[in-house]
Amino acid sequence: MKILDSNSSYLTFQWLGTFTLMYTFSDFNNKLTQGSGIGELMHDLGAGLEQARRMNLEISMLGGGNPAHIPAMEKIFQDRWKFLSAQKETLNRTLGDYSSPQGFLEFRERLANYLSKHLSYPLKASNLAITQGSQSAFFMLLNSFAGSIAKEGKFQKILLPLVPEYIGYTDQGIQEGIFKSLLPIVRTTSKNRFVYEIDFAKLEACLKKESIGAICLSRPTNPSGNLIPSEHMNRLLSISRKFNVPLIVDNAYGYPFPNITFDHSKLDWEPGMIQVLSLSKLGLPGLRTGIIVAEEEIATRISEMSSILNLAPGNVGSLFVEDWLENDLISEFSNDIIKPFYFQKSQFALQQIDKHLGSKIDYSIHESLGALFLWLYFPNHRYTSRQIYEKLKARGVFVISGENFFPGLEEDFSHRKQCIRLTYSRNNEEVIRGIKILAEELNL
Amino acid sequence: MKILDSNSSYLTFQWLGTFTLMYTFSDFNNKLTQGSGIGELMHDLGAGLEQARRMNLEISMLGGGNPAHIPAMEKIFQDRWKFLSAQKETLNRTLGDYSSPQGFLEFRERLANYLSKHLSYPLKASNLAITQGSQSAFFMLLNSFAGSIAKEGKFQKILLPLVPEYIGYTDQGIQEGIFKSLLPIVRTTSKNRFVYEIDFAKLEACLKKESIGAICLSRPTNPSGNLIPSEHMNRLLSISRKFNVPLIVDNAYGYPFPNITFDHSKLDWEPGMIQVLSLSKLGLPGLRTGIIVAEEEIATRISEMSSILNLAPGNVGSLFVEDWLENDLISEFSNDIIKPFYFQKSQFALQQIDKHLGSKIDYSIHESLGALFLWLYFPNHRYTSRQIYEKLKARGVFVISGENFFPGLEEDFSHRKQCIRLTYSRNNEEVIRGIKILAEELNL
Repeated sequence: MKILDSNSSYLTFQWLGTFTLMYTFSDFNNKLTQGSGIGELMHDLGAGLEQARRMNLEISMLGGGNPAHIPAMEKIFQDRWKFLSAQKETLNRTLGDYSSPQGFLEFRERLANYLSKHLSYPLKASNLAITQGSQSAFFMLLNSFAGSIAKEGKFQKILLPLVPEYIGYTDQGIQEGIFKSLLPIVRTTSKNRFVYEIDFAKLEACLKKESIGAICLSRPTNPSGNLIPSEHMNRLLSISRKFNVPLIVDNAYGYPFPNITFDHSKLDWEPGMIQVLSLSKLGLPGLRTGIIVAEEEIATRISEMSSILNLAPGNVGSLFVEDWLENDLISEFSNDIIKPFYFQKSQFALQQIDKHLGSKIDYSIHESLGALFLWLYFPNHRYTSRQIYEKLKARGVFVISGENFFPGLEEDFSHRKQCIRLTYSRNNEEVIRGIKILAEELNL
Repeated sequence: MKILDSNSSYLTFQWLGTFTLMYTFSDFNNKLTQGSGIGELMHDLGAGLEQARRMNLEISMLGGGNPAHIPAMEKIFQDRWKFLSAQKETLNRTLGDYSSPQGFLEFRERLANYLSKHLSYPLKASNLAITQGSQSAFFMLLNSFAGSIAKEGKFQKILLPLVPEYIGYTDQGIQEGIFKSLLPIVRTTSKNRFVYEIDFAKLEACLKKESIGAICLSRPTNPSGNLIPSEHMNRLLSISRKFNVPLIVDNAYGYPFPNITFDHSKLDWEPGMIQVLSLSKLGLPGLRTGIIVAEEEIATRISEMSSILNLAPGNVGSLFVEDWLENDLISEFSNDIIKPFYFQKSQFALQQIDKHLGSKIDYSIHESLGALFLWLYFPNHRYTSRQIYEKLKARGVFVISGENFFPGLEEDFSHRKQCIRLTYSRNNEEVIRGIKILAEELNL
C-alpha cells in the first residue's frame, strides 16, 4: 500500500475502513448475521452460479432450491411476458402503482375463487395475503406466534412436529430459541429406503408441557421429500385446534400448484390452518411472490405487518398468473408439465444413486414423494455430513449438509450428522457427475 | 343466520371463527399490528384507489406516496418491457433464478460504476445491496443500529436530527422507543413560507448524552419537501463520524435518480454514510427495488439479513434499469422528464393553495425543494390536523395527518397537531378539487 499524504482522502478512507468496525450493532443485527445455513446456501447458489457462468467451470449445483428451467414452462413465461407488452393499461398499473399491503384486491378475489375450488372451502379475498415470497411470509408468521409475551410473562415456541425441516426457518427467529422440535419415527420401507413419521404421542405430550404458539411443517417436506399422509394432517389439525394454536403448512411445493408431489397430495384448507403457497417453484422465484391462506384475522395482521416491513408486495407475480386462475391453467401447467418433469428427475437421480453407491456404501434414501430434493442417510460412514459437504464443494459439487435441518432439536439423533440434501432438479449430466463424485469421495 | 345441524362444517366454522381470537400472538406481532400511520396510509392508498376504479367515485388521492403516472416515462417502461420480450435468455434468468441475497453481482457491478461517477467515490459491487424496496431496507437498517445490546446492557436509538420525518419509519422498530428526535429551527422565508433547519447545538448535546446507534434523515425530506443544504450534510457527516455512528440518508427521491429536487441536490457518498436509493419514484413502485450504498461490512450484513428475511430480492427491478446505467439514460430520464414534471406540479399546487386559502386562512407552507409533497401548517386553526384529515376523507379527499411524522419526539411542538401532508403528484383536476375542499372545510 502506498503511503499517502495524511490529508489525502485515500488515507482517510483506509482509516475509515477500520472505523467501520467500531459501529455498535444491535442484538437483532448480530443474531441475523452470525452465519446462517440459509445464508451459506444462498451464497453458494448465487455466487456459485455466477462463477460458473463467468468461468465456464464444471459445477454440479445440487445444493440450492432453485427450480429447474423447464423449457415448456419457459416458453409459457416468455409468451406471457410478450402478451403483456400489449396490455398497456395493466402494465402501467402493475409497474406504477403500489398495491395494498395485502396485495391487489381484484387479484385476491380471483385467487380466492380458484383456491375455494381446490381447497374445498369458501375462501374470500380477505383470507389471502400476498407477500414478498414465502420466506418473507414465514419471517412474519413464525415471529407472530413465537417469542416473548411480556404481559403473560411467557415465551412461546414454534413446534416442528418432525425434523429434518426446512433450513430457511432456522435463523428466522428475532429471538433465540424459538423452535421446539420432535424426533421422527424412522420406518424402513424397503432396501435402502425409509420414511419419517410423526410421533403423535410425543407431540401431545409436548403440547401439554411446553408453551407452544403454533405447529409448523412443510408438505411436501423440504429437505426429505416426505409427504405427510392426509390422515396425519387431519390428526395434526385436530390436535392444533385442541391446543388453540394454528397449524402452519408450508405448501411451497405442494397442491394445487406447483404440485410437485408423487402421491396423494390434496390438502383442504380449514379454519385453524395457515397455508403458505408460492410462485417460486412454478419457475418464478425471481418474482418473489408468496401467498398466505388463513383466517381473516391473521391475514389482516399480516397485511398490517407487511405495510410496516415492505409497504406492499411486488406486483409482477400477481400480474403473471392472474389469467391462469379462472381457466385452471395454473393447475394444468402444474399437473401436465411441472409434476411429470420433476417425477422423472427424481426417478433418474434415485437410479443413479443406487447404481453408483449401490454395493459399496451403506446408505438409505428417504422416499421421494415430492419437492426437489433427495435426502441421503449414511449411517456408518466415517465422514460427518459437514465433511462430506466440504469434500464435495472442493470438487465443484454443491449439496447441503444435513445438520442445518434440525432447528430446536435437543436430543441426539444420528441422522443429524449423517445426512445430506441433494437437489435433483438440475440437468442429468450435472446430477450424474455429482453422484459419481459423491461415490468417489465416500469410497476414499 | 340459519341454524344448522351441530355436525355441519358450517357451524364448526362459526365456532372456529371465534376460536381464531384465542390464538396468542407474540409481542412482536402485537407491536406491528397495533395500528400504524403507514398502515392507514397504505390502506387509504390501496383500497381508496381500487374503490375509485370500481365505483367511478370522485376522489382526490392526495394522501399516498404513489408516484405520478408520467406518460413519457410510461412509454419508456412499455418499450422496455417489449424490448425484453425478445431477450429470452435474460428473461429466463430474471424470472427463473434466485439472485444472491445481495442482488445479481453483474448488476451491482454496473450500478457501482454508474454510482461511482455520480457519488464521487470509487464504489464496488460489494458496497451495494439490493433490497425488496427501500422500506424493507430501512426495517433492516433501523433495527441493526437501534435496540438492545444485551452484553453491553444498553439500548441504542436512532437519532432523527429533524422532525417531521418519514411516516414509514415510525413503527419499524422491533422494540418500542427506538427513536430520539429533535425539534427543528423554524425559519420563515417569505409570506406564507417557511423552512425547517437542523439545530446543531441540540444535536451534539444529544449525542453526548444519549446512547445513539445511527443518525437518519430523508433528503429530500418526506413529508416537508425540505432539502438539507450540502454544508449541513457535511456537518452531519463529520459529527456522525466523531460519535462513531453511521449517517443514514434516505435518498428515495434524491440525486442521482429520480432526482426530484428543485435546488442543489448532489450528495457524494463517503465512508461513514449509508445511502438508500429506490426505483419507486422513478415510476416503478410495483417492482419493489431498493439499493443500499454503504461500507462493505454493512452491505454484507444486510445481505446476510436479506437471506434470512427474504432469501433474495426480486429481479425485475434490476433487469428493468440495468441498460440505463452505462449510458446515463437513468439520469437523463430523471433530469429531463421526471424532475421538470414534478417541479411544474409543485408550482401549480403552491399557486392553487395561495389562491384558494389566500386571504381567509392563516397558513404557511414549507418551501418545496423536492419529493412529492407539500407540508401545510395551520398555526391558529380550531381544527387539529387529525380533524382536518377526517373531514377531508369524508369528502373523498385523502391527505395525511401531521402527527404521524414525529416519531420519538418528546417535546411539545405546535406543528405536530397543526400540519398536513398533501401529495401534488396527481392530475391537476384532483389537486384543484382537493385544495378547494380543503379551503371549504377550513372556512366552515
